[in-house]
Amino acid sequence: MLWENTDHSASEATLQYTMEPKEFENRFLPYDVLTNLAHVTMLHRQGFLDDDELAALRDALTDLYHEADEVDGEDVHTFVEERVTRRTEAGKKMHLARSRNDQIFVDTRLFMKDATIDLAGRILDFIDALRTFAEEKNVLIPGYTHQQQAMPSSTGLWASSYVDALIDDLKSLRATYRIIDSNPLGAAASYGTSLDIDRDLTTELLGFAQKQHNPIYCSNRGKQELQLLQTLDLVMLDVQKFAEDVINFSEDQQFFELADDYTTGSSIMPQKRNPDILELARAKAEEVSAGKEAIRRIIGKLPSGYNRDSQQTKGHLIEGVDTVRATLDILTPLVESMELSDDFEIDEGIFAAYTANQLVTEGMPFRDAYHEVKSSEEYETHDEVAEPVHQPVGDLRTFWADERERFDGMSERLLTAD
Amino acid sequence: MLWENTDHSASEATLQYTMEPKEFENRFLPYDVLTNLAHVTMLHRQGFLDDDELAALRDALTDLYHEADEVDGEDVHTFVEERVTRRTEAGKKMHLARSRNDQIFVDTRLFMKDATIDLAGRILDFIDALRTFAEEKNVLIPGYTHQQQAMPSSTGLWASSYVDALIDDLKSLRATYRIIDSNPLGAAASYGTSLDIDRDLTTELLGFAQKQHNPIYCSNRGKQELQLLQTLDLVMLDVQKFAEDVINFSEDQQFFELADDYTTGSSIMPQKRNPDILELARAKAEEVSAGKEAIRRIIGKLPSGYNRDSQQTKGHLIEGVDTVRATLDILTPLVESMELSDDFEIDEGIFAAYTANQLVTEGMPFRDAYHEVKSSEEYETHDEVAEPVHQPVGDLRTFWADERERFDGMSERLLTAD
Amino acid sequence: MLWENTDHSASEATLQYTMEPKEFENRFLPYDVLTNLAHVTMLHRQGFLDDDELAALRDALTDLYHEADEVDGEDVHTFVEERVTRRTEAGKKMHLARSRNDQIFVDTRLFMKDATIDLAGRILDFIDALRTFAEEKNVLIPGYTHQQQAMPSSTGLWASSYVDALIDDLKSLRATYRIIDSNPLGAAASYGTSLDIDRDLTTELLGFAQKQHNPIYCSNRGKQELQLLQTLDLVMLDVQKFAEDVINFSEDQQFFELADDYTTGSSIMPQKRNPDILELARAKAEEVSAGKEAIRRIIGKLPSGYNRDSQQTKGHLIEGVDTVRATLDILTPLVESMELSDDFEIDEGIFAAYTANQLVTEGMPFRDAYHEVKSSEEYETHDEVAEPVHQPVGDLRTFWADERERFDGMSERLLTAD
Amino acid sequence: MLWENTDHSASEATLQYTMEPKEFENRFLPYDVLTNLAHVTMLHRQGFLDDDELAALRDALTDLYHEADEVDGEDVHTFVEERVTRRTEAGKKMHLARSRNDQIFVDTRLFMKDATIDLAGRILDFIDALRTFAEEKNVLIPGYTHQQQAMPSSTGLWASSYVDALIDDLKSLRATYRIIDSNPLGAAASYGTSLDIDRDLTTELLGFAQKQHNPIYCSNRGKQELQLLQTLDLVMLDVQKFAEDVINFSEDQQFFELADDYTTGSSIMPQKRNPDILELARAKAEEVSAGKEAIRRIIGKLPSGYNRDSQQTKGHLIEGVDTVRATLDILTPLVESMELSDDFEIDEGIFAAYTANQLVTEGMPFRDAYHEVKSSEEYETHDEVAEPVHQPVGDLRTFWADERERFDGMSERLLTAD
Repeated sequence: MLWENTDHSASEATLQYTMEPKEFENRFLPYDVLTNLAHVTMLHRQGFLDDDELAALRDALTDLYHEADEVDGEDVHTFVEERVTRRTEAGKKMHLARSRNDQIFVDTRLFMKDATIDLAGRILDFIDALRTFAEEKNVLIPGYTHQQQAMPSSTGLWASSYVDALIDDLKSLRATYRIIDSNPLGAAASYGTSLDIDRDLTTELLGFAQKQHNPIYCSNRGKQELQLLQTLDLVMLDVQKFAEDVINFSEDQQFFELADDYTTGSSIMPQKRNPDILELARAKAEEVSAGKEAIRRIIGKLPSGYNRDSQQTKGHLIEGVDTVRATLDILTPLVESMELSDDFEIDEGIFAAYTANQLVTEGMPFRDAYHEVKSSEEYETHDEVAEPVHQPVGDLRTFWADERERFDGMSERLLTAD
Repeated sequence: MLWENTDHSASEATLQYTMEPKEFENRFLPYDVLTNLAHVTMLHRQGFLDDDELAALRDALTDLYHEADEVDGEDVHTFVEERVTRRTEAGKKMHLARSRNDQIFVDTRLFMKDATIDLAGRILDFIDALRTFAEEKNVLIPGYTHQQQAMPSSTGLWASSYVDALIDDLKSLRATYRIIDSNPLGAAASYGTSLDIDRDLTTELLGFAQKQHNPIYCSNRGKQELQLLQTLDLVMLDVQKFAEDVINFSEDQQFFELADDYTTGSSIMPQKRNPDILELARAKAEEVSAGKEAIRRIIGKLPSGYNRDSQQTKGHLIEGVDTVRATLDILTPLVESMELSDDFEIDEGIFAAYTANQLVTEGMPFRDAYHEVKSSEEYETHDEVAEPVHQPVGDLRTFWADERERFDGMSERLLTAD
Repeated sequence: MLWENTDHSASEATLQYTMEPKEFENRFLPYDVLTNLAHVTMLHRQGFLDDDELAALRDALTDLYHEADEVDGEDVHTFVEERVTRRTEAGKKMHLARSRNDQIFVDTRLFMKDATIDLAGRILDFIDALRTFAEEKNVLIPGYTHQQQAMPSSTGLWASSYVDALIDDLKSLRATYRIIDSNPLGAAASYGTSLDIDRDLTTELLGFAQKQHNPIYCSNRGKQELQLLQTLDLVMLDVQKFAEDVINFSEDQQFFELADDYTTGSSIMPQKRNPDILELARAKAEEVSAGKEAIRRIIGKLPSGYNRDSQQTKGHLIEGVDTVRATLDILTPLVESMELSDDFEIDEGIFAAYTANQLVTEGMPFRDAYHEVKSSEEYETHDEVAEPVHQPVGDLRTFWADERERFDGMSERLLTAD
Repeated sequence: MLWENTDHSASEATLQYTMEPKEFENRFLPYDVLTNLAHVTMLHRQGFLDDDELAALRDALTDLYHEADEVDGEDVHTFVEERVTRRTEAGKKMHLARSRNDQIFVDTRLFMKDATIDLAGRILDFIDALRTFAEEKNVLIPGYTHQQQAMPSSTGLWASSYVDALIDDLKSLRATYRIIDSNPLGAAASYGTSLDIDRDLTTELLGFAQKQHNPIYCSNRGKQELQLLQTLDLVMLDVQKFAEDVINFSEDQQFFELADDYTTGSSIMPQKRNPDILELARAKAEEVSAGKEAIRRIIGKLPSGYNRDSQQTKGHLIEGVDTVRATLDILTPLVESMELSDDFEIDEGIFAAYTANQLVTEGMPFRDAYHEVKSSEEYETHDEVAEPVHQPVGDLRTFWADERERFDGMSERLLTAD
């Protein structure tokens, strides 16, 4: 450990209680190497490192990037510093003008950028599966209100409602991404540093759209994590409603048939095929939302400046991202393999409003038409199938593709610079 | 009641349980009149109303807008329809091609737009107060980490960290506003209408930037309310941290003095002046966040199409908006009247990192400098006061001013059209 | 206002922001009078009031109890003190050895005791309605797992599952009540008083089972409110599942018919009758739970000793209690009026496990029987109707009846003492 | 996998999405063996197994208990059944009259009983540390209200306020334990079984105080988990306040000195010692509360009968228990090693109420005394140190010791029966 107080060793129990699980540390390893590369490049430009030191540090870091995938030791920052210092004495200068605080802030920011771009791509895949379903498997079904058959709807109108919703979510995700896309490196231990560093340079090297200005605000760890999970909560809210609908539509209401690969059996009832995936997606949506709320509560009421509490936001961030990813990955093929049933019943009452509207077009005031249909209980039916409808995707697809390219380009430049 | 089933009267108890508090209904009255004005204008254009009917309806609605401020009867929609129908028989046609569902959706959307513009203005006022404080009352104070004196900071750096944070929030609020700024009218009871209506026209008349495309998605009540409260939760998170800091800084740490008007006394301890406003702001931030979570949970797991559960989101929306407004309104003058204390102590240890950095600039590696300072406990101090720093406000001020103008223009055009 | 600092008047805005809504104050008025009666009786016994002063105070307080039902002025404590002081100079001594803090603590405790006893009675009424339904309207229905027909069940087995659940809740409510049933009066402003008071006497007079010992713990406002709402959250969790089941069972699955009085119509679809009450009960369960969480979050991270934040717990407590009460009051008659449908379909597959079990009783290992039934898809059916089953109510009914008597006896004794 | 549908194999992706992490399964292994032992003993008594089969199953299960500590395969139930079936053909009969549902219900119930007894013991240890501190390190300190010095208090009064609080929690934990202490085994797939089983016998063998009566209620997975976490939330609420106080008291207010072993250093500021443990305890309290809320939300709105969603409650239960345990384990020695500082300042104003009370005892009405002290600002001080005070522990210590003995006795009897 590099940061213990030499005269008094912190007890083992304290370390156990305060350390993060190793699997969280591993996730930040590539980002930590990248931020170190940017930092040492800047230190060299500012005269804190000579050419040889820079070269040695770059070699050590690049090798570490390609070779290590498991953090060994107290945490990812200590691990990287120790490994590099083993290779070159210049490793001892690597922490200059930084604090563990701004190291984890910037690592987390890169993780969030990378994850957001990745998730946006998966949401677009899910959208594509829904659009295809809406277009290719469009039949008349009853639309429900109050969980009762109410009005004529269609499978295409239904499926495209989720496309409409998810496009809103992608817009929100873009706005969130633009907030996240700012560089906190240089905040040091929340109050900046007296050394002459160049924050604009690290911002450029790390591919951030802007630097985060105020160092105290930089150290407000968890707020941007919260904002990302808020947006993912919206995504999962839509996913959850989708799961609820498909459970209903594939069971009692029998419009859909789930592929066998996406259902499970029962250990006691041989006849059953259960929609476990959708039940779990429904539950996992609550977990993402509860994880978001955990972050909100952990950082709530904290005074400004770094507080250790904020470390506990990391796990909720990682788990939230992973859960959304896994859920999208299973639902996309589930939709692709979902078939229409040819055997379901429609209550003629769903044409009641249509019947009243027909009377209206013949000149009767709506309130009178309503009462007429209500007392006669005779309905005029039709067999038109509503077309899918949703807002345009616009430039969202290219936006996220461009960001993927920018991010990967940044990473490649740092790893191959010479 | 217009919408009861005539043959069976719902019991009084049922009505009591299912109705909203009157004060919530009152809040939507002006928006309901505006949407009715837009709707009847469209019905006329589409041939469902003749010129006389339109004129009579406009007169009745405009008068109602100016005269009524209390809803009497079951809910705001019924109240408006009944009042207008008392004046003109054409009132019976006013509900044509609509459902109570899309009426409340569009009313809520207008309420949210109006409230968001209003809150953005108040956030800007709070920002201005913080900027003035940062510039005019800037002195050296210790910066805290782990709730201990850690590094040199300044009151200006501290106050401007909230400016930086609130500008991020204003950006997020703009993104949220752009999602909200879409017209759900025409969704009817979640599945559209078979009548020939013109949704683009009502969208234009009501001043929405776009229409919301899919009627099933339109009926997904609560999602946009949730998104607005998510963003306000970010605002209140910053406000809460501000409150926590000021409580700390005005008591034990004694950097600030709160004006007497913004403190309260004790009934049993004559000597005390308490920061109740800040304690309540801290608590109210939790309430806004919990109200947001109430909305998330109310709408969670609901199948698509209208469900009555979603009605319960209304109160949490209104209360959330009101709480944020009241909090900003009291904190802005509190900041304006906040004075610096001239009597506080600074621990010299806050210059330890500075001292180590000085050794670094003389060539010592950071890790060695760190250990040197640690063992000597001798610190080099300075009296530089860090300048305020935050990201630029950019076009946010004009954006919100323009939206205010657009919104008020829409309202005026509808009320004075002839 | 009695407690302002005379030299500096708190601004009107500050008052507005820090005061509670009047309707919350009104709810505590009777309890505040009772605690004042107990307090002055104790002050007299300890020699702080002479006989005439006691008599005058008792008269004034008793009259106030019978005459006032609206608080006028800053809050309930100030209102009572001012009214009494208008009648007798001894009113100025009434606040002796108390703080507003322990006044509101003890008022709240009495409110919670009274409300808990009341709610327990209503839960017992709901239980009775469910038991009657289970016994009198018991038919074979399919039992669901994974929202699919799975096994033979019965309406009686189903309804009595809620009886079983609610009896658990009543046990939990009793445990919570026993925690609440302790007297905080005497804690003063969180640290006791130097005056010679008799806390055992006020404990006895106010009918508490014990006094709360540590004054700092007394001032931990909100914890017991949280605990009560936690228990009510369990009640509402059961109520919510009941609502979900009845919505399902009365719609697609068509086992039940809701009485017309407990459904509502649609403004656009003449044919519909909607289960709005049950949808709202489902939503209100989330609100009670979110209100509980608001309390948890408001009081979280607060240091010991009184903090003003805790005032904000009051509204959530009152609203939680009111919502549970209103929900039970509408669901009990809804169950009483709920009829069985005579027209629903049962999937024979629900007898698959039964068929396998029959093979087992003839000697086949279960795993083989399971595969046999699975491949044959031939089921042995039966028409036995499972009997209702639940744990005994035990002494819960008498416990709550006794507590009602104790509480009312306490109140009567204080109001009629002479 | 024993429970797949043979004709269609569920895809690997589906399995990945629906399986629990292995480390959760491992935790339930000992409980699963115990419930299998009880179940086969009952099956033998009811004539479903002959003597040899019982003997073979017992041997296999007992060996498994002692030898295995890692689940290999799909889940713990499948693992146990497969391992036993490898040893004896009778393993195929072991699942008779059960479902995976009631297996996991009863395993979870045993886990919760065991964990609750364990945690109660650790709470008692923490109480002992606080009592010792209160008695041995009792000095006058200011008591705070509104985070300001307010009244005379003492370290003993303060520490014993947590003893008072934790005794309430232990009472609540006992009530929760009594709800949990009921046997769900026999519920099968939520609707019981048609086979002639003896639920009273398994209840006795597994050491439950009673059986859970209604099988549909048994299958209400998550409710009792929620109730346990609600109670642990109360414990952590007290712990959190304790952490907040100690952070305040050991830093700015400087009453306490934390032992070096329970603080950590800074990587950039050589002079600092940070209370990370207490900051993390504060954060982890929010995590336990958020985990509880995750359970509440996962099980909310689910219809009766088993739903797969409920599986997701398991992780939150285990993590909640583990977090509380780890936190108590580190705080107990932290308290034991905490020292009083000899260098802190007390504001004389804390004696203002005392001074006013002295005037009252000389005959002045309280309101007049209050104003007198307020204007004079002259205080009469004293140096009495308030004694620790808390409610008696009563029979709580023996209750939990007895339950430990009962639980271990049950386990030993099942494992050694012959």
